[in-house]
Amino acid sequence: MANEGALQYPIIAVNDADTKHLFDNRYETGQSTLDGFIQATNFLIAGKVFTVCGYGWCGRGIAIRADGLGAKVIVTATGDKNVIDDAHFDAIKDGCVIANSGHFDVEINIAKLRERTGRTELPRDSVEEFHLSDGRKIRLLAEGRLVNLAAAEGHPAAVMDMSFANQALCLANLRQRNGELDTTVHGVPKDIDQEVARLKLQSLDVEIDELTQEQVLYLWSWREGT
Amino acid sequence: MANEGALQYPIIAVNDADTKHLFDNRYETGQSTLDGFIQATNFLIAGKVFTVCGYGWCGRGIAIRADGLGAKVIVTATGDKNVIDDAHFDAIKDGCVIANSGHFDVEINIAKLRERTGRTELPRDSVEEFHLSDGRKIRLLAEGRLVNLAAAEGHPAAVMDMSFANQALCLANLRQRNGELDTTVHGVPKDIDQEVARLKLQSLDVEIDELTQEQVLYLWSWREGT
Amino acid sequence: MANEGALQYPIIAVNDADTKHLFDNRYETGQSTLDGFIQATNFLIAGKVFTVCGYGWCGRGIAIRADGLGAKVIVTATGDKNVIDDAHFDAIKDGCVIANSGHFDVEINIAKLRERTGRTELPRDSVEEFHLSDGRKIRLLAEGRLVNLAAAEGHPAAVMDMSFANQALCLANLRQRNGELDTTVHGVPKDIDQEVARLKLQSLDVEIDELTQEQVLYLWSWREGT
Amino acid sequence: MANEGALQYPIIAVNDADTKHLFDNRYETGQSTLDGFIQATNFLIAGKVFTVCGYGWCGRGIAIRADGLGAKVIVTATGDKNVIDDAHFDAIKDGCVIANSGHFDVEINIAKLRERTGRTELPRDSVEEFHLSDGRKIRLLAEGRLVNLAAAEGHPAAVMDMSFANQALCLANLRQRNGELDTTVHGVPKDIDQEVARLKLQSLDVEIDELTQEQVLYLWSWREGT
Repeated sequence: MANEGALQYPIIAVNDADTKHLFDNRYETGQSTLDGFIQATNFLIAGKVFTVCGYGWCGRGIAIRADGLGAKVIVTATGDKNVIDDAHFDAIKDGCVIANSGHFDVEINIAKLRERTGRTELPRDSVEEFHLSDGRKIRLLAEGRLVNLAAAEGHPAAVMDMSFANQALCLANLRQRNGELDTTVHGVPKDIDQEVARLKLQSLDVEIDELTQEQVLYLWSWREGT
Repeated sequence: MANEGALQYPIIAVNDADTKHLFDNRYETGQSTLDGFIQATNFLIAGKVFTVCGYGWCGRGIAIRADGLGAKVIVTATGDKNVIDDAHFDAIKDGCVIANSGHFDVEINIAKLRERTGRTELPRDSVEEFHLSDGRKIRLLAEGRLVNLAAAEGHPAAVMDMSFANQALCLANLRQRNGELDTTVHGVPKDIDQEVARLKLQSLDVEIDELTQEQVLYLWSWREGT
Repeated sequence: MANEGALQYPIIAVNDADTKHLFDNRYETGQSTLDGFIQATNFLIAGKVFTVCGYGWCGRGIAIRADGLGAKVIVTATGDKNVIDDAHFDAIKDGCVIANSGHFDVEINIAKLRERTGRTELPRDSVEEFHLSDGRKIRLLAEGRLVNLAAAEGHPAAVMDMSFANQALCLANLRQRNGELDTTVHGVPKDIDQEVARLKLQSLDVEIDELTQEQVLYLWSWREGT
Repeated sequence: MANEGALQYPIIAVNDADTKHLFDNRYETGQSTLDGFIQATNFLIAGKVFTVCGYGWCGRGIAIRADGLGAKVIVTATGDKNVIDDAHFDAIKDGCVIANSGHFDVEINIAKLRERTGRTELPRDSVEEFHLSDGRKIRLLAEGRLVNLAAAEGHPAAVMDMSFANQALCLANLRQRNGELDTTVHGVPKDIDQEVARLKLQSLDVEIDELTQEQVLYLWSWREGT
């Protein structure tokens, strides 16, 4: 929108905060996606081959948790529209389960899947089973929508506190800098991100060490050390 | 019952089958217990301290999966009535969640917990929050009953097939040996357990190598090897 | 030897002690085998495909540690002479490293490997590189002998104490029961195995809980619990 | 040096390349540090408490591998001179092993340690045992120098190829831009870093998918998706 001049006011890209993607995307999406998968299917994850398309922060979290539940995890590096497309439907094994997490419902080309399908069944809540004309069955979870939100409860509060804090503080910051900012997309102010991190650590009774003067000097010096 | 002569007919202890405890107890109870915990609480497991009391096959499965979801796991070796008792309620941290999996509802001494409690709340399905007189809160899941059955769907079909197969084949075996068996507890016949394993592997298209004659001889010989 | 009447005196099979295979075979062989592999090759384990032939206690330990160092681990269930044989040499990828751990040097059919080989090189200590006539190279570690003993230091003392304690106590036990025992292979007396475990835990300052009378009764009773 | 005007010519900070810290620092330092630790001590890692001071790329790699070898890993966030200092020597448990990896020999305040020490022993190569006046023993590996280089062979070739490629290409780049660059520290040119990554993937026979035109458009569009 910024590129096309379609923005009406300044925006802060809160999803790029460190306190968001290092926790919310990684740990919460990871856990809740597997949780959504289990709630939708009640399949045993252990021993399954689990392919994660996309290896950003969400993909990493999903891969860690699938591995932690005993799956053999394959990761690919992508994240876009039609990530699972016609060519993949050719190759997918009979009985495979496909789901989307972390993005809109465009990642799986459901229209193409429907074209190949004779009939569908709804064996469980959040599961649609496509019976392809070649006899294979493909199971789609939650209509291709975010399986962690649609089939599970989504993100635990223990981390959403940081995401919401970023959003609230960025809104206040936009208000405060009213008139100063260009009508484009701005990064999360570093001090907001760090303040959210500091408050979170404080709430967990974690203390942060301070560097000694000698240590500060060492970090800046180039004369010491071999 | 066997010790007290209270059995009316021969029994086969199907829960002791290898194809039961190596899969059902370990992988299914492991996954479904964590699943029940998440469905009941929607807590983030990562970073939590997770204490597993009891390290039999169920306890091992639960520990593996809690670890896989990012918890710091502590295991203890036990499994009995009142495993969590009055002395533990003294020590438990404010906000701790306690649950039972793999056994009857006697593992947590709920009566003692109730004695210390001013009032209780029900913040979510399957969660009872005990407000102790000293100000701490302890959350009990699913009334102390099996959390994987009470708060999640229990065991995936991918392994229950083996447990059910053992039960059915043992019943048939009891019928077949009618009159031959003492009225006591018998082990699962080894050939039933192995037949269930063989069928399961076959259903997964896993083939089993055969030893060559040279290999069989080597295994029995004591003359070769240094 | 017992089957053939070749034993001259009673034997206790110390390698079957729980305090041996649960620790020595699993944790020590696991760590020292990977250590031997790294010392022999200085290869990065992460990302490598690591096939473990044999899934007894040694194989499990090796699989856990290869996984822990980032390998993609494949396990097979075997353990005998010629586990890696002519047919495998057909299939092995160029550059593959093969090694034996946990048993004599008969597991790899080195004679067959040598028949296919034009020339060999010794690129590093403990590494022999076989240049096959089809152009592939296969690297054999430590002449097919136990790689954890031949290329690393073998088992850490922290667990060998238990193995040695079992051996010493079993010898004393044999002496004590002189004349009482048949000239065949006997299991490790349970009280020796448990005494070794108890002493080890004591040396680690680990205390063992005692069951209450109520808990003992519960374990024996069949009337309580639903 | 740049800050103080002490540089004589332009510098490229090759250690900041993605193809360096994501692989060399993480996987190689991780593996070789544990390898150095084992070679120096032959201690069993499993079950040990392993404290990693510093959680940059090296620290992460070390933590992953210590975890993978069965240690209970504690991480702290630091990395500087005197990271282990007088106050830590007060607290360290008898028999503790300390080592440095990833940096100069200033991380452990060895001078302070020596002040508290009655006598030292050299029980193994690369191990110095400090007998403190209070009776505790602290074992220092490799004189506080990089334990992965001093007690093991350092980094496997499978990743050093990328680090060396970066260094060579950056040198050529400096030569090529002779006269154009300020006498200060420059980042690794992005195209060099990506070319190294591309060549590495190519050497592993990994192909990279290309986005379709529809996918490129989708990534840039803000109109699609709900």
